[in-house]
Amino acid sequence: MPDNLLIIAASETDADLYYASRFLAPDSFIYLAIGGRSYLIMSDLEVDRARAQSTVDEVLSYSDLREQTVARGINKPKEADVIQTFLLAHGVDRLVVPENFPLAAADALRERGVMLSVREEPFFAERGIKTEAEVAAIRETQIVVEKSVDEVFQMLREATLRDGLIYHNGAPLTSESVRRRLHLALMERGCVAQHTIIACGIDACDPHNVGSGPLRANEPIIFDVFPKSSDSRYFADMSRTVVKGRASDGLRRLYDTVLEGQELGISRIRTGASGKAIHDAINELFETRGYKTGKVNGRMQGFFHGTGHGVGLDIHELPRISRSDWTLQAGEVVTVEPGLYYPDIGAVRIEDMVLVQAEGCRNLTTYPKVLEIA
Amino acid sequence: MPDNLLIIAASETDADLYYASRFLAPDSFIYLAIGGRSYLIMSDLEVDRARAQSTVDEVLSYSDLREQTVARGINKPKEADVIQTFLLAHGVDRLVVPENFPLAAADALRERGVMLSVREEPFFAERGIKTEAEVAAIRETQIVVEKSVDEVFQMLREATLRDGLIYHNGAPLTSESVRRRLHLALMERGCVAQHTIIACGIDACDPHNVGSGPLRANEPIIFDVFPKSSDSRYFADMSRTVVKGRASDGLRRLYDTVLEGQELGISRIRTGASGKAIHDAINELFETRGYKTGKVNGRMQGFFHGTGHGVGLDIHELPRISRSDWTLQAGEVVTVEPGLYYPDIGAVRIEDMVLVQAEGCRNLTTYPKVLEIA
Repeated sequence: MPDNLLIIAASETDADLYYASRFLAPDSFIYLAIGGRSYLIMSDLEVDRARAQSTVDEVLSYSDLREQTVARGINKPKEADVIQTFLLAHGVDRLVVPENFPLAAADALRERGVMLSVREEPFFAERGIKTEAEVAAIRETQIVVEKSVDEVFQMLREATLRDGLIYHNGAPLTSESVRRRLHLALMERGCVAQHTIIACGIDACDPHNVGSGPLRANEPIIFDVFPKSSDSRYFADMSRTVVKGRASDGLRRLYDTVLEGQELGISRIRTGASGKAIHDAINELFETRGYKTGKVNGRMQGFFHGTGHGVGLDIHELPRISRSDWTLQAGEVVTVEPGLYYPDIGAVRIEDMVLVQAEGCRNLTTYPKVLEIA
Repeated sequence: MPDNLLIIAASETDADLYYASRFLAPDSFIYLAIGGRSYLIMSDLEVDRARAQSTVDEVLSYSDLREQTVARGINKPKEADVIQTFLLAHGVDRLVVPENFPLAAADALRERGVMLSVREEPFFAERGIKTEAEVAAIRETQIVVEKSVDEVFQMLREATLRDGLIYHNGAPLTSESVRRRLHLALMERGCVAQHTIIACGIDACDPHNVGSGPLRANEPIIFDVFPKSSDSRYFADMSRTVVKGRASDGLRRLYDTVLEGQELGISRIRTGASGKAIHDAINELFETRGYKTGKVNGRMQGFFHGTGHGVGLDIHELPRISRSDWTLQAGEVVTVEPGLYYPDIGAVRIEDMVLVQAEGCRNLTTYPKVLEIA
């Protein structure tokens, strides 16, 4: 018998709930799986739409269950009482909930004698193993990423250099203006992006700095682009590092090393491979090439993030290729994105997204990797 | 002495955490307020950026605290151990957390003897009372909404009717094509929209149906537009119902009634007013005008959602103007959006966003309300 499950969340922000219900709503609602049968309990506002759109076995009306709760003598029923009415009808007093299950709801249910246990992530193990349709959706988003990034790189190709800045149509390009252009290009193709990183020079040395101000000639610019398809809701994720003009010798060496690390990582990905071993191998390569990781003058430098993460309905989901243990399995879609960050040399991150297979992987990213844009 | 607070969340999706830290990150991090002083505990990846960008009093390194945790004899410390190291140093064993605090973290802390109590929403009461700067940010987003909606209504004005459909530039307009155009218009002005409702006819009778397929002449089309500014992260929210062509008499009467209800609602908003009383008054007006609410053939019709909700860093936040009790206070920004939905007449929702004031309210929405577009 499978565990009986409970999720209370808003599916627009909770991918597990969307995965389980294929129903999108902005406000919190209730999902249950009891004896292998799945249910939603929905407000009057959402109940009809849920019946039409959701893939669960049965959609129940919160108002109806609330009335039944009053009928069993509870005058002003709270959400936990209403859920308990459902549980009583099904003879269930033990539920498995996700790690992020809201504490207020948990305390209220436990007070009523319902036993809750937390399942460690992943809540739905099968979410990590992408179906063919899911891989196709991710690849579709990735195609949009590549077309849109190329549109922006075309601007860089056409641009000219003056006084250390990059001019296009008479104005210096900035992180903000290029981001706006890229977001529009993505949206024209049905994808929504937020927090896209277009970070130059010292900004790029902080891996999550989105970048601001004028883009500068002859300095690394990291593009990290990870939109979601509005239709399918599947993400894609790609990073490229480019220089408009000429890269210094130090930066070129840094770039070649990161690329070497990335290729090493990709070459090791297959069913059964240890994510930790892959991450450690890249770290070791960087150390061997003389690129140390650690704090310098109170600031992190080197390779101080994970090698990769799963991509799907969330931009960051399991598995991780990092210091934590994880054994890769066919069907997982993961990024491979080592980076090196040194304020006095520059910053490089190169990221592809691959599908883990029995004997290797299939790279879902087909965009070229070229450091210099002339 | 203020309560000691703990939040563990990702600020990109948790507005309380963003409000408290003004730091945006895609992955979960730790916020504490102890004795009125605020702290973040950040991974190596985010610690330097958090120091540069966050408004908290102090940013601590997770790695440093982890080392201290090992030093106090815990070999493979978990997040809860690391938090406890911090709490021990501050002599604190009692924390207040939000309703949506993740259960896994709560159980782990409680196992270690930390007492957690949940604060009922709102976690930060002051978030409901907007500062002048926040009102200005919301109004700025609203200006973008009005300009963008007007761009799309201009398309409707230019459009021609043929065979019951609405043609523009030789092709029939659809929910999807108009949504795409509207999203681009919003994005060109720095706002990100998702799930914008452009729902015609029967689709519109379901208040959260986003709409699909061709828009039809002489039928109501509900536009419900609620983007977020990428810069400020503040939302705005506006709904308009229009007909391209001629509205039926029944639909016109429905429209006039909803408008009357909305005006009634707006006229009653002021400090000290009861949200429930306002909602009930609108309901009563609709009943008096002959518009009943309830299930017909198993489907909800009438006025079956709340009158309004707060708007800010979340699109739906406290307060509510609904069946639940709430006493309005100056500085709150709320929508007033009654609607009536009847499959055999049509659907109408009209929504403005107002700032509650001592003696009334200021309407932050300045866009006209006109049913027919000729």
